[in-house]
Amino acid sequence: MKKKLILDLDTGVDDALAISYALGSPEVELIGITGTYGNVLLEQGVRNALAITDLLGHPEVKVYKGLSHSSTTDSFEVLDISAFIHGKNGIGDVDIPDSSREAEEQSAVDFIIDAVKTYGKDLIYVPTGPMTNIAAALAKAPEIKDEIGGIVLMGGALTVPGNVNAWTEANISQDPDAANILFRSGAPATMIGLDVTLQTLLTYKETQQWRDLGTKAGAFLADMTDFYIKAYETTAPHLGGCGLHDPLAAGVAVDPSLVNTLAINMQVDVEGATRGRTIGNPEKLNDPNKTMKVAAGVDVPRFLNEFMTRITNLARQAA
Amino acid sequence: MKKKLILDLDTGVDDALAISYALGSPEVELIGITGTYGNVLLEQGVRNALAITDLLGHPEVKVYKGLSHSSTTDSFEVLDISAFIHGKNGIGDVDIPDSSREAEEQSAVDFIIDAVKTYGKDLIYVPTGPMTNIAAALAKAPEIKDEIGGIVLMGGALTVPGNVNAWTEANISQDPDAANILFRSGAPATMIGLDVTLQTLLTYKETQQWRDLGTKAGAFLADMTDFYIKAYETTAPHLGGCGLHDPLAAGVAVDPSLVNTLAINMQVDVEGATRGRTIGNPEKLNDPNKTMKVAAGVDVPRFLNEFMTRITNLARQAA
Repeated sequence: MKKKLILDLDTGVDDALAISYALGSPEVELIGITGTYGNVLLEQGVRNALAITDLLGHPEVKVYKGLSHSSTTDSFEVLDISAFIHGKNGIGDVDIPDSSREAEEQSAVDFIIDAVKTYGKDLIYVPTGPMTNIAAALAKAPEIKDEIGGIVLMGGALTVPGNVNAWTEANISQDPDAANILFRSGAPATMIGLDVTLQTLLTYKETQQWRDLGTKAGAFLADMTDFYIKAYETTAPHLGGCGLHDPLAAGVAVDPSLVNTLAINMQVDVEGATRGRTIGNPEKLNDPNKTMKVAAGVDVPRFLNEFMTRITNLARQAA
Repeated sequence: MKKKLILDLDTGVDDALAISYALGSPEVELIGITGTYGNVLLEQGVRNALAITDLLGHPEVKVYKGLSHSSTTDSFEVLDISAFIHGKNGIGDVDIPDSSREAEEQSAVDFIIDAVKTYGKDLIYVPTGPMTNIAAALAKAPEIKDEIGGIVLMGGALTVPGNVNAWTEANISQDPDAANILFRSGAPATMIGLDVTLQTLLTYKETQQWRDLGTKAGAFLADMTDFYIKAYETTAPHLGGCGLHDPLAAGVAVDPSLVNTLAINMQVDVEGATRGRTIGNPEKLNDPNKTMKVAAGVDVPRFLNEFMTRITNLARQAA
């Protein structure tokens, strides 16, 4: 059976690229997108996911609304830095038509649980925002940790500093407690953190290839991603491009051999000065059963080639 | 040619075990011990190294005095926690006779530089205390970074929390600036941190084997190490034994295949809240030339077997 994918997105720029990567991958079927908050508000991210799947020629992909704020807060507001990086509308302030579709009635949390029950080991869940939805699903149906095929998450930083502060990465910082629940749950999770995503960089040279396709989808992807690259020129000028955070998680969900990993039992610090840090759980250091993997290296040329081939083909066909 | 080893020690309990491991390893020649401060004052550590090499039947091993305090302070005092773990005399408050020998006239820093010039790629330098001496040697003779065979250091923590605070390991905490000089120098260094040394645990069961030998050396090693295990019952009761920090670095110097490593360009944070943290250098994340290796996993049964075999044989023969 074809591998089934759920993307859990706060649909900003690199989330949109993750959608594109998944839709451009014949090895997997994207059975749904669950919405979260982070780069944008929940409602905006859901709107973007519906509009983008339409534009990319895949209106069959259903979108589900998740929780609108973290497990320890009552509300959520987009940070200025998020709007700077992703644009006010989350997709580089590029205008694309609203979808005529709406989000599904079923909640994201229930959809995730149902999908695990239906597809079991064939299901890979890919959260690239806060871990709020999966933590809620694990609270409601703890057994899914043993039933799911795998979780490939974008978030955290183990061997490099964070991007919110010296020890915290942005997705984890939105809801450290939820991430800690996932990390300590025993679910088979692979962490795609800044350790590897800051190695996979895109430049204007690549986005121009999309623009040159002459399709609406190609123009959208190029314009949106250029906004993101431009923000990186300010926030991380030493990189010389933008980090392909979320698409790398999608890529690893499709083909785990793109990264090499360290097997380790992880935790998220929720108390004290290092709140939000992703780190090995010292109390499980000597447990021979390691439930998580942390990507420590990535085959950069191979990933970039897969990334460009898959997304360019999709954007060519989408019209 | 036999591999040449220099141990750079603040001779406390596990430093003494590192001396024993090196002397019990026929593959290497211990050409000298350079003294540093940390678990004990410089003078006490040098005294211990001379006394221990005598007791173990190796009075040919020369001992050199290094720097007595960090590169950013004017003096050094032993922390209460160090005395608690290693004893006031550094070797579990076990009495052994002073050596009739004295430390050499040549300074540790000059000895290290001379040894690199003499043995080049055949020399492995193993610092298991602060990195003050090697930083001074690199300042005086920067070219040794390219001439030395390797550096295997005990210190730091990359994938687990520190043991001084949430992000800092004890050896690095003594002189973060010196460690940062080493880490950024480009010297071929392997970091043996808490990531692996808290996996290699010793218990009273093993030390009893030394006591049962009926030799002075066996009794010393057993009594000294029992003091250390007892301290661990207070400081880290979840471990169920004591960490073999320094001997693992000696073990990897003898046989690098005992650990698996992550190739990475490292730094030590010297500014800000995380001063003393060992972490990947984000500015060199995409540099294909990785000058350091960080041990991420260790073959625990094989190391413990090597550790017990080598040290037990030595303690049997030493009388």
